[in-house]
Amino acid sequence: MASRLITLTTDFGLVDSYVAAMKGVILSISPGCQIIDISHDIEPQNIQQAGFVLASVVGYYPEGTIHVAVVDPGVGTARALLAVEMDGHIYLAPDNGLLGVLYEKRSISKICKIENKSLYMPDVSRTFHGRDILAPVAGHLANGLPLDEVGSEVTKYNKGDFVHPIISPDAIRGSIVYRDHFGNLMTNISKNDLESFDPVLVEVQTGYTKIKGLCQSYSDVEKGELLCLIGSAGYLEIAQREGSASDKLRFPIGTEVEVTLKASS
Amino acid sequence: MASRLITLTTDFGLVDSYVAAMKGVILSISPGCQIIDISHDIEPQNIQQAGFVLASVVGYYPEGTIHVAVVDPGVGTARALLAVEMDGHIYLAPDNGLLGVLYEKRSISKICKIENKSLYMPDVSRTFHGRDILAPVAGHLANGLPLDEVGSEVTKYNKGDFVHPIISPDAIRGSIVYRDHFGNLMTNISKNDLESFDPVLVEVQTGYTKIKGLCQSYSDVEKGELLCLIGSAGYLEIAQREGSASDKLRFPIGTEVEVTLKASS
Amino acid sequence: MASRLITLTTDFGLVDSYVAAMKGVILSISPGCQIIDISHDIEPQNIQQAGFVLASVVGYYPEGTIHVAVVDPGVGTARALLAVEMDGHIYLAPDNGLLGVLYEKRSISKICKIENKSLYMPDVSRTFHGRDILAPVAGHLANGLPLDEVGSEVTKYNKGDFVHPIISPDAIRGSIVYRDHFGNLMTNISKNDLESFDPVLVEVQTGYTKIKGLCQSYSDVEKGELLCLIGSAGYLEIAQREGSASDKLRFPIGTEVEVTLKASS
Repeated sequence: MASRLITLTTDFGLVDSYVAAMKGVILSISPGCQIIDISHDIEPQNIQQAGFVLASVVGYYPEGTIHVAVVDPGVGTARALLAVEMDGHIYLAPDNGLLGVLYEKRSISKICKIENKSLYMPDVSRTFHGRDILAPVAGHLANGLPLDEVGSEVTKYNKGDFVHPIISPDAIRGSIVYRDHFGNLMTNISKNDLESFDPVLVEVQTGYTKIKGLCQSYSDVEKGELLCLIGSAGYLEIAQREGSASDKLRFPIGTEVEVTLKASS
Repeated sequence: MASRLITLTTDFGLVDSYVAAMKGVILSISPGCQIIDISHDIEPQNIQQAGFVLASVVGYYPEGTIHVAVVDPGVGTARALLAVEMDGHIYLAPDNGLLGVLYEKRSISKICKIENKSLYMPDVSRTFHGRDILAPVAGHLANGLPLDEVGSEVTKYNKGDFVHPIISPDAIRGSIVYRDHFGNLMTNISKNDLESFDPVLVEVQTGYTKIKGLCQSYSDVEKGELLCLIGSAGYLEIAQREGSASDKLRFPIGTEVEVTLKASS
Repeated sequence: MASRLITLTTDFGLVDSYVAAMKGVILSISPGCQIIDISHDIEPQNIQQAGFVLASVVGYYPEGTIHVAVVDPGVGTARALLAVEMDGHIYLAPDNGLLGVLYEKRSISKICKIENKSLYMPDVSRTFHGRDILAPVAGHLANGLPLDEVGSEVTKYNKGDFVHPIISPDAIRGSIVYRDHFGNLMTNISKNDLESFDPVLVEVQTGYTKIKGLCQSYSDVEKGELLCLIGSAGYLEIAQREGSASDKLRFPIGTEVEVTLKASS
């Protein structure tokens, strides 16, 4: 059997046994399958963060990887569960917009609604479909079950509310979408959005704070200074060298970020 | 060799290297063995929580799984270490009541006292038997060592102080035993305790708070409202839709919960 | 192929996807390779803590293990990345002193500077060499690449500023170097430093606190009492039975610890 690899992204935390329950279900169906945690510390019910974290990492995983993402405030309602193939990877998640940012960045091959009850756990709870539906489906897919077997193809699905920055010839208006462990503030302004412009002449303004120029690494400024750079996930990021930009600036998620720039000649 | 699977449940946290030391010992003895973390964020020395978390998840693991649980305030005293077979799984833990809730719910085949020193690490510390005794024993058992080889069978062991709810014909008096990551408050009142009663007529009282009826999922109430339901581990749970019941109610572990109900006709 | 085992030690935390990105890179190059987390909760940019945590655990891992450690405040500067062979293990880390404590305790066979760009990710960012350089190099080494292939041998490297205790005939002056999850305070005074002395006559003084004698386990004192013992990593440790010495004493890292003792006769 080929190498079987499943990743998990949830808001379950690591204190309780929810994640371990999902792993037990997967390993009961697909013994020896390799399971990698992307993150289980997504803020409770923060669908957009889950999508952002997952999207920033899938490009580093091999083709054939199965990604299970469970941030599911609508569990127990009529919302569907989906199995999506994009760029040779399979994604299992609630149809609540979580995969929105991935639909933007990846190429969709097929979207199936999960509805083959023979794959589910015998007793499906109404509060934990990650364990009772997504985990066993992931285990069966890892064992080689064709995607078609999980349910019928759908063409309507929740595309999420991924907010694109507004781009004009000499300015981009975006927002802070994520704050990482180091206190770096990530925006929705991508490397591509910025690439036709001169990094030296960029000026980033957010609130009363202005930062001039786009650095290439933290060490381009003195310790404690703020800087802007393209972060490792490919987005404009506001950082503080050997410090936390988030602690210093205290900007909430959603804060507007305006980039003014000149095209490089 | 069959698929070898070991789970770990501890109060060691994930900051230090204690868990990683145990994994190194296991993998030195049983290379390639799969190790799954149940939780390492059990509150320091909270034996009852460890038992509760482990018990809620073992049913999802395949037969033959070896579960190592280390919450061990008595390390260095005369308390024994046990290897217990229940329902085709093996459990390694201190004899301090940690496994009490599992003894209640599972069928015991054999309980051995771990005493075969040839299986231990060469230098056994007096402060870390998880690494020096339980981890190597787990590795050897994963390699196929028969359970009898770890030590002699015992009939006396610490059954823990698992508190059962008090059940009368039209009321159940239990208590809150666990607070999960989402702030859901779990009680010791099981689905079975409640099953002969009419969920619509149930009234749950704890402190001055009364909640009427038993919901099937969070979405049965409006956002922010409290509800009662049978949680995914099979116990009565007090929750708040898209919020934290624990933050709202601030009930400590041990708070009494009284369920009054009418038998369904 | 032999059992392939890679450990990771970082200050990336488990909320973001940085660790998962490294794992994806490793598994793309070396499918099925086993990856064990030592700790990802090293304090941001605390190089010494990373070295201490890693050093306390490598002795429990089998020969051939590859240890990747990334606490890298100098990422993007000219600091080198090293691949070091010690006692049959391979270590990949920035040349910033992180491995200093390991150089002290292990036997160095070879130190190579990582410079074979054909092993790197196609686009090397200037902010995340853990993912773009160390992870792929680890994957290739796990697949059997000889150490020589990563780059040329070097003889100059950063030995770190590991502080040795000052030892006189009847006293040792060291310091607190680490505070663990349980609030135990670990010093840089090793079991070896103390071994020619009589544990009963030891007196440990730090600030205004004096602790007499060296215990063998927590249970040698009453609940709530302070004690000194040799911790499971082999260093003198100040602990409180069933409590947190750190919370009680509030000594910062670096606090001086003086041990006065008499040689055993």
